Amino acid sequence: MERSEALRLAEQVAAGTLAPDELVRRLQTSAVSDLGYARVDTDRGMRTGASEVVYGEGKTPEQIAGILGAMCEAGQERVLITRLDPEKAEAVRALLPAERAAAFDVRPSARLGILGGMKPEDGAGTILVACAGTSDLPVAEEAALTAEFLGNRVELLYDVGVAGIHRLLSQVDAVSRARVVIAVAGMEGALASVVAGLASCPVIAVPTSVGYGASFGGVTALLAMLNSCASGVSVVNIDNGFGAAFQASLINHLS
Amino acid sequence: MERSEALRLAEQVAAGTLAPDELVRRLQTSAVSDLGYARVDTDRGMRTGASEVVYGEGKTPEQIAGILGAMCEAGQERVLITRLDPEKAEAVRALLPAERAAAFDVRPSARLGILGGMKPEDGAGTILVACAGTSDLPVAEEAALTAEFLGNRVELLYDVGVAGIHRLLSQVDAVSRARVVIAVAGMEGALASVVAGLASCPVIAVPTSVGYGASFGGVTALLAMLNSCASGVSVVNIDNGFGAAFQASLINHLS
Amino acid sequence: MERSEALRLAEQVAAGTLAPDELVRRLQTSAVSDLGYARVDTDRGMRTGASEVVYGEGKTPEQIAGILGAMCEAGQERVLITRLDPEKAEAVRALLPAERAAAFDVRPSARLGILGGMKPEDGAGTILVACAGTSDLPVAEEAALTAEFLGNRVELLYDVGVAGIHRLLSQVDAVSRARVVIAVAGMEGALASVVAGLASCPVIAVPTSVGYGASFGGVTALLAMLNSCASGVSVVNIDNGFGAAFQASLINHLS
Amino acid sequence: MERSEALRLAEQVAAGTLAPDELVRRLQTSAVSDLGYARVDTDRGMRTGASEVVYGEGKTPEQIAGILGAMCEAGQERVLITRLDPEKAEAVRALLPAERAAAFDVRPSARLGILGGMKPEDGAGTILVACAGTSDLPVAEEAALTAEFLGNRVELLYDVGVAGIHRLLSQVDAVSRARVVIAVAGMEGALASVVAGLASCPVIAVPTSVGYGASFGGVTALLAMLNSCASGVSVVNIDNGFGAAFQASLINHLS
Amino acid sequence: MERSEALRLAEQVAAGTLAPDELVRRLQTSAVSDLGYARVDTDRGMRTGASEVVYGEGKTPEQIAGILGAMCEAGQERVLITRLDPEKAEAVRALLPAERAAAFDVRPSARLGILGGMKPEDGAGTILVACAGTSDLPVAEEAALTAEFLGNRVELLYDVGVAGIHRLLSQVDAVSRARVVIAVAGMEGALASVVAGLASCPVIAVPTSVGYGASFGGVTALLAMLNSCASGVSVVNIDNGFGAAFQASLINHLS
Amino acid sequence: MERSEALRLAEQVAAGTLAPDELVRRLQTSAVSDLGYARVDTDRGMRTGASEVVYGEGKTPEQIAGILGAMCEAGQERVLITRLDPEKAEAVRALLPAERAAAFDVRPSARLGILGGMKPEDGAGTILVACAGTSDLPVAEEAALTAEFLGNRVELLYDVGVAGIHRLLSQVDAVSRARVVIAVAGMEGALASVVAGLASCPVIAVPTSVGYGASFGGVTALLAMLNSCASGVSVVNIDNGFGAAFQASLINHLS
Amino acid sequence: MERSEALRLAEQVAAGTLAPDELVRRLQTSAVSDLGYARVDTDRGMRTGASEVVYGEGKTPEQIAGILGAMCEAGQERVLITRLDPEKAEAVRALLPAERAAAFDVRPSARLGILGGMKPEDGAGTILVACAGTSDLPVAEEAALTAEFLGNRVELLYDVGVAGIHRLLSQVDAVSRARVVIAVAGMEGALASVVAGLASCPVIAVPTSVGYGASFGGVTALLAMLNSCASGVSVVNIDNGFGAAFQASLINHLS
Amino acid sequence: MERSEALRLAEQVAAGTLAPDELVRRLQTSAVSDLGYARVDTDRGMRTGASEVVYGEGKTPEQIAGILGAMCEAGQERVLITRLDPEKAEAVRALLPAERAAAFDVRPSARLGILGGMKPEDGAGTILVACAGTSDLPVAEEAALTAEFLGNRVELLYDVGVAGIHRLLSQVDAVSRARVVIAVAGMEGALASVVAGLASCPVIAVPTSVGYGASFGGVTALLAMLNSCASGVSVVNIDNGFGAAFQASLINHLS
Repeated sequence: MERSEALRLAEQVAAGTLAPDELVRRLQTSAVSDLGYARVDTDRGMRTGASEVVYGEGKTPEQIAGILGAMCEAGQERVLITRLDPEKAEAVRALLPAERAAAFDVRPSARLGILGGMKPEDGAGTILVACAGTSDLPVAEEAALTAEFLGNRVELLYDVGVAGIHRLLSQVDAVSRARVVIAVAGMEGALASVVAGLASCPVIAVPTSVGYGASFGGVTALLAMLNSCASGVSVVNIDNGFGAAFQASLINHLS
Repeated sequence: MERSEALRLAEQVAAGTLAPDELVRRLQTSAVSDLGYARVDTDRGMRTGASEVVYGEGKTPEQIAGILGAMCEAGQERVLITRLDPEKAEAVRALLPAERAAAFDVRPSARLGILGGMKPEDGAGTILVACAGTSDLPVAEEAALTAEFLGNRVELLYDVGVAGIHRLLSQVDAVSRARVVIAVAGMEGALASVVAGLASCPVIAVPTSVGYGASFGGVTALLAMLNSCASGVSVVNIDNGFGAAFQASLINHLS
Repeated sequence: MERSEALRLAEQVAAGTLAPDELVRRLQTSAVSDLGYARVDTDRGMRTGASEVVYGEGKTPEQIAGILGAMCEAGQERVLITRLDPEKAEAVRALLPAERAAAFDVRPSARLGILGGMKPEDGAGTILVACAGTSDLPVAEEAALTAEFLGNRVELLYDVGVAGIHRLLSQVDAVSRARVVIAVAGMEGALASVVAGLASCPVIAVPTSVGYGASFGGVTALLAMLNSCASGVSVVNIDNGFGAAFQASLINHLS
Repeated sequence: MERSEALRLAEQVAAGTLAPDELVRRLQTSAVSDLGYARVDTDRGMRTGASEVVYGEGKTPEQIAGILGAMCEAGQERVLITRLDPEKAEAVRALLPAERAAAFDVRPSARLGILGGMKPEDGAGTILVACAGTSDLPVAEEAALTAEFLGNRVELLYDVGVAGIHRLLSQVDAVSRARVVIAVAGMEGALASVVAGLASCPVIAVPTSVGYGASFGGVTALLAMLNSCASGVSVVNIDNGFGAAFQASLINHLS
Repeated sequence: MERSEALRLAEQVAAGTLAPDELVRRLQTSAVSDLGYARVDTDRGMRTGASEVVYGEGKTPEQIAGILGAMCEAGQERVLITRLDPEKAEAVRALLPAERAAAFDVRPSARLGILGGMKPEDGAGTILVACAGTSDLPVAEEAALTAEFLGNRVELLYDVGVAGIHRLLSQVDAVSRARVVIAVAGMEGALASVVAGLASCPVIAVPTSVGYGASFGGVTALLAMLNSCASGVSVVNIDNGFGAAFQASLINHLS
Repeated sequence: MERSEALRLAEQVAAGTLAPDELVRRLQTSAVSDLGYARVDTDRGMRTGASEVVYGEGKTPEQIAGILGAMCEAGQERVLITRLDPEKAEAVRALLPAERAAAFDVRPSARLGILGGMKPEDGAGTILVACAGTSDLPVAEEAALTAEFLGNRVELLYDVGVAGIHRLLSQVDAVSRARVVIAVAGMEGALASVVAGLASCPVIAVPTSVGYGASFGGVTALLAMLNSCASGVSVVNIDNGFGAAFQASLINHLS
Repeated sequence: MERSEALRLAEQVAAGTLAPDELVRRLQTSAVSDLGYARVDTDRGMRTGASEVVYGEGKTPEQIAGILGAMCEAGQERVLITRLDPEKAEAVRALLPAERAAAFDVRPSARLGILGGMKPEDGAGTILVACAGTSDLPVAEEAALTAEFLGNRVELLYDVGVAGIHRLLSQVDAVSRARVVIAVAGMEGALASVVAGLASCPVIAVPTSVGYGASFGGVTALLAMLNSCASGVSVVNIDNGFGAAFQASLINHLS
Repeated sequence: MERSEALRLAEQVAAGTLAPDELVRRLQTSAVSDLGYARVDTDRGMRTGASEVVYGEGKTPEQIAGILGAMCEAGQERVLITRLDPEKAEAVRALLPAERAAAFDVRPSARLGILGGMKPEDGAGTILVACAGTSDLPVAEEAALTAEFLGNRVELLYDVGVAGIHRLLSQVDAVSRARVVIAVAGMEGALASVVAGLASCPVIAVPTSVGYGASFGGVTALLAMLNSCASGVSVVNIDNGFGAAFQASLINHLS
């Protein structure tokens, strides 16, 4: 229950048009989402963009199209769908009204779908996405596009794995310009550690499932990144470019 | 080599008092730390406080006292020593000059030693440290004191594990007031996820090694926290209260 | 051998119509299921419904149809087949006599097949199935339908993951009404812990294999749930909605 | 806020002695624990005994004695302290007032301390604790004494590991008499599976950390028990005799 | 080099028809397989049947057919090919000469191919293969057919998992008749332990990869079986029915 | 119940001196150990020596001495206590009657205690215990002494790790003389594989917990040994010298 | 920046044609790759062949063809593409100019593509690749062909697994002739250890993902090889034949 | 048997003073170590120093002193004992003859004992030991001293972890001067990868067990190092400084 609604009911009680007993009943049976904790959540969604994101994995095209429709009708200007395979994306498009279908922007390698375009840039600085190897690019792109969608200026560094350290060092200016760095790496998990040594801003590390043998689907990179934390790096789940971008955007929007 | 020094040498060449050949030799044999990448590092240390921290584990009292001496002589105003067992702390104190020994502040449960006191508060907001269980408190205190040392206003919530969710919900105001939240938990790894749902700021999760059986020394909490990342949580190493506070401080000092 | 049958034989011995030697031989060669331990098992099967369940995985359609036939001939009124893929279900249907085929109820998302309909409700209260995310629904449905098949009244809560805690809190009445709660979650393994804090009845947790990266096919949820056990939660195997429902039904049928 | 208190405030609004605005403010700032969800928790604690239990590990004797004092003053009749090492138990006793110290019942092998005695039996049936090996006994005793403390009649079977199956089979009557069975085993994790086949009531399995080599501190027993879940067994954390007894008591007190 | 050949050469030296130097050279350059360690190996192959087995996985049909040809030409009477998928088996058959192709016996579920038929029974007793669940049957059949191929009398027990212990107990005579028992189980890893308690002969346990969730592709069964070893059980690799049968045959052929 | 006893009772029924009802009651209430499955177990214990072994770990000296007393009184001629630390062994000795105490043979490095001496040799052949490194010797000695205790002739090879393969090859005669080989190794887990290639008898592998780093307390050796199973090796738990010897003795006593 | 270039600039400063300030700016903004560390890297690439290798996995045929074109234009004489599936190799070939397409040498089983042929032999000795089983051959061939490409004389031993130790022993001359040995094995991880005992040169071990069950995709072989390190063996990632050959070539080219 | 001895015997046969039969018998009964494979091993020990090393862990002081005595008597000039705790080292010294005791050089932090001093430098170049953190120094010293003992010139770099990359870059000359590099790191496992990118010689990586939480006793560093192998790094067991130095010495002594 919104505060205004609660106030309205209380005024009715004061006016004698509502029984005190009834006020209490309504307050208790109203969904918790109508009270403080829930409102916080809604506030958060509106301000940070969490309410504009749909996790596409494990949902049918019909379900996704339905959710998009409901969100648009509720006045949502833009929506990001993550983990959306290209085929499913086209199936979703086919279910959308013609106008929306035309505006449905699909990014296959990042597995993203975007409706309504990117939010205008309103973050405080630049988010730098540093990507170790070519095979890590899809996750880096998921991070970069998500950050852009959420209203951030984004810079993307390619192919700066630590095995050829000069490639990263030659980009040290970009690192020092950033307000937040997202370091994406599968086999070169140490990228997060080296970058954090060069930067003076927060670094969020994203291990990727790229690699073979003892890379164990990203677990080795994840562990390596966690062991670099002493220098102020934090880590998200394997391949979770979205999560890193989401937190980076929160940081970049702190006033 | 500092930029000013390089400039001075170049001016000597221009003035004919230094051979061009000699300038090049000096540039190449000078430590890399004298060039761009290294200066960035030094800048970072000075601004963020990384240069004010000594990792105490695996160092002898003599080594620690020696490092403290060198740092003080180099003009370092304050030093934080982490992972410092109480006995070793007292052994370090015994090796310090009388004045410094008297000013050496040891916090046994957080395993910290502080020389020169806390930095005056200069962060933008409050860092909230939310701690699930009583046994997780040492790690929470490491985080809280580290953040305070680095110049942040800190608030600490006790005993807000999710098994009794009302304890956390009754503190929802504190959560919404914070600029960064550090969530510390061993067996109730879900704390990070629930807190992130209530907050609209970045949340850094610290798994602790508290627990038994299938808690595997903090691994279960670590994994549970990594799986909450979709909502914008990032994670540091098990028991790494320092690392979480360091990154939280970086965020809280972004202008 | 039933007790009554054993008594009949012993009376024959007493009557001289059966040789003592033959009595002993029959007792020993009769299947153990004819004796105490086995009878218990049979009793159990009959009373709890264990004898009415066929595990479908790894069996051919022919084998399943054959078993169904044998069970029906043995007088079994209703049969539940678990882990039955839709294609295999249709192959089974094609092998059934027309009348049974028509009555064969297949639930694709829950991977269940039901012959003979649900058992009439005879449990003491309601089994609540609380499901964290949309992707966890198939396992939740396996649990809900199994519980229904076994004669329980079932209530199903959707989308009550702890990252948006208000969604669960708004359903707290349903939790307090339940006699047993089954908590189903993949990435939000903490659901079991939070629910157990809100309920005063037994909670059975089912981790699901939903997730990616460090969810390790449900292992993270499994471990997180096991670490909540201090509050009285117990856990079943990953994706084992059937097992949770079976135990919940045993509890709900305790007189 | 209690319902009665909310009603009283609403009546003040109706009577004009409280501003509607003030009513809303109080409802929102009142601790969540004063509303529905929290009250449920308190109810649960009172009815099930959760509020009578202190987890002793990681608490100092002073902390434990302090908690005991506060609980007694709050009118708590009896308290159970779990994971209480004998030495710490004696240190706690030394801190208690003489009368309480005399009544403080310490059970070293089960690592339990009991103040105020066992609750009178008020459960519906018998909880059977079946223990595989002699080395598993401490965990079995933790379960048995906890269940007794919570008001249950308890029966304990020793040395019924499945490697000598006749030992268990000879006790099949005890199994069939039970309303709930707790199966405790380290190396013979299959005990839970075999017992569940013999019983017609719920079975809660407790893996223990007993064993060597590939028993991995109880992990093998834990996994083996989880794989038996198809037959309706559920599992708690390694060595968590308390948790199993707590849930068994919830089941045994269902009316 | 065979002893007789070495003797012949030495006699030539004694006769002066071979230079001492040449004798030494030949002894040293002869393949090690011609000396003691290798002969042992050959002896073993001939006596135990190891030389009659081809591991089919990772070999092309052409390679397998080629090996079969070479073995037949070398006088090998019968050959067993393991891990032979049905399609590959037919491809092999198509490459064999007509007569052999007709005699090529393929067992799809056990993934075996047999050329030349089973060896006549020459073992000392019976090898009992006890199989827990229907899904474990392919591995059990691999074991049973391998043992038969190697000249053993084999008995196969179906569906004797420990969750319904009476099914095994009713077959206790078969267990006591056996000279070696092979216990095959995926989810009911305890079968090995229970069987070993009933038998007085060696028990070889074969974990299978059957199961889901926390069965981890047979690892749980493997570990559970290893923890039963105190009672004299030994274990082979997951799904290694062949290996168990090979060792069982060695034991059954000990004179 | 023995078959003869059951026959006697049935004859009483036939003679009218026993009520049929009473016969049935006695058959059902008699311990299962009195029936077929249990007798097998007792037979096994008597014949194989399982009933002569006490697992010492986790038992107090008083418990062990009590068990020894009960066994001696029951007519047991000799007893083996495994996993008996030297100090506990002396504590046990102090609790034994003088005569038995004098005859109590303690082997510290193998952690064994032996009462009543070794059983006279009655096995069919020799059990060879091959031990890779000096540090593996305690486990090898546990195996060798256990086998000797159970009536086997034992030969022990020291220091035959595969990194110096000639050491093993020079002992190939001992390998070929054996009826069973027990291969004991921690870091050189391949010993089992190499030995199996040289032997024509069953090989039982015992991984030991010797090693450091990636030896993981014996897990690496365990896994390496399991992967050698194709050649007919079977494996027991880490450090389980007793278990290997027990099975080897079963094999060596097959007639 | 090359040393000569830096010198030229400094001479311009001395000559007054370049401002000192400008010199410093250029030194700082020049890419790091123009300075010492980068040059080392380039040197390395040229001398060792690292710059001649393209990792094919996760690149599209278009990307690979593009890279090949760029490298050829840059004067690269020969290029090795690793992890190149046969289909992708043909797609690459179709994109190459006719002359290069004709010279594009694809080795399907080793998953290699070679443009420009092998480098002439210029290593100091022979690299021996010893391969345990037939299924390990693809990895062994990747190692052998890579080494050949890099200018080494290579010898390849087939089928020398330690379960039939004589096969390896008969090739001991080849082992002692080698300057470096690469030992490739999946299930017979001990090969590295045995070979190192026979050789007096460095041994590099390559675990392969060949095997089933407890081979865990090469992890068991990896661990077994790491535990042999005391004798001077080092290990590369699972299936990393290229990496082993690269290091072996570095060793073989040491002057 | 040495070749010369074999020749002598064959000449006796030719001379008629030895029966051909006797020659064959001697060849066959002679230890394999007397033939080709074994001699290779001895050669290796003599040339590489493997025969001069004793693994101290798990040996008693008496055993170590006995081995030292035997080796000295056999003419061994110098002996290295690894994994020798300081207390045990002194116990060994007390057991040595006075002269040797005085010459017994113990290095506590590296846990080494050296008898007879270092071998004079005879390697081709310098072995560089690069060590990430202060806590990794004991392992680095084990490597450095072992390499020195084996006759190599050694250079040791301290505190060159990648989190402060300039520290390593400033030492790039030392890296490029080396003939082999040993990279030692616990938490900064990426050191190996970065170093390999800077060097043009072989790099051997040694993970250390230094760290906490998700460092898992060195496993994370081990895995991170294995994932860097593409660039030509190889890895030894955790904390195995000796093994890395041994292989480095083999490489450095290649002529």
